[in-house]
Amino acid sequence: MDRDRISRLGTTPPEAERASEQLAPLELGLTVRLDRPFHELKEFLVSEFERAYVTRCLEQSEMNLSIASRTCGLSRKHLRTLISKYGITVTRAVASEGDDHPVTEP
Amino acid sequence: MDRDRISRLGTTPPEAERASEQLAPLELGLTVRLDRPFHELKEFLVSEFERAYVTRCLEQSEMNLSIASRTCGLSRKHLRTLISKYGITVTRAVASEGDDHPVTEP
Repeated sequence: MDRDRISRLGTTPPEAERASEQLAPLELGLTVRLDRPFHELKEFLVSEFERAYVTRCLEQSEMNLSIASRTCGLSRKHLRTLISKYGITVTRAVASEGDDHPVTEP
Repeated sequence: MDRDRISRLGTTPPEAERASEQLAPLELGLTVRLDRPFHELKEFLVSEFERAYVTRCLEQSEMNLSIASRTCGLSRKHLRTLISKYGITVTRAVASEGDDHPVTEP
């Protein structure tokens, strides 16, 4: 993917991000140049959104998958699929929920 | 949809937009707050992108559906579906391509 033509904009300045490392920024800013193929851009937008959304959602629910699922309007199955797809590390949820199947990816 | 929490950012300032009314801005900037339900935000992002992308693509190809389809990497069928979905007006393409089925929506 040509990163010169597609960019992700953090809406929180780097200083502020360092100051609150526990929680990802509440807002996601995305900019795409519209002169790239449709499917490439759509896939990029959706991926960036899903990754940021699930990360934020899990952090906010303190890695509790049940709470995350409820607050984000996602089924647990869908949530687990997204966690796996983006290789998001979930540590506390596995222990606190007694889940037999870790969803953590390396 | 709660527009206070979801916004579309035009990357071209209003003055510049007025100066070049023929062509939509090349870049699309989108910002979403990540504390809304997943499906609502995803639908919003995809819709805003698809609408802006198809509009820009058609303008750039001077409303020629064949050219637009090729340059944007979309099948003609998919392109027509999106045009219809978002009620995008296509005038020149119908005449210049001798298309029997107008895709223009009121």
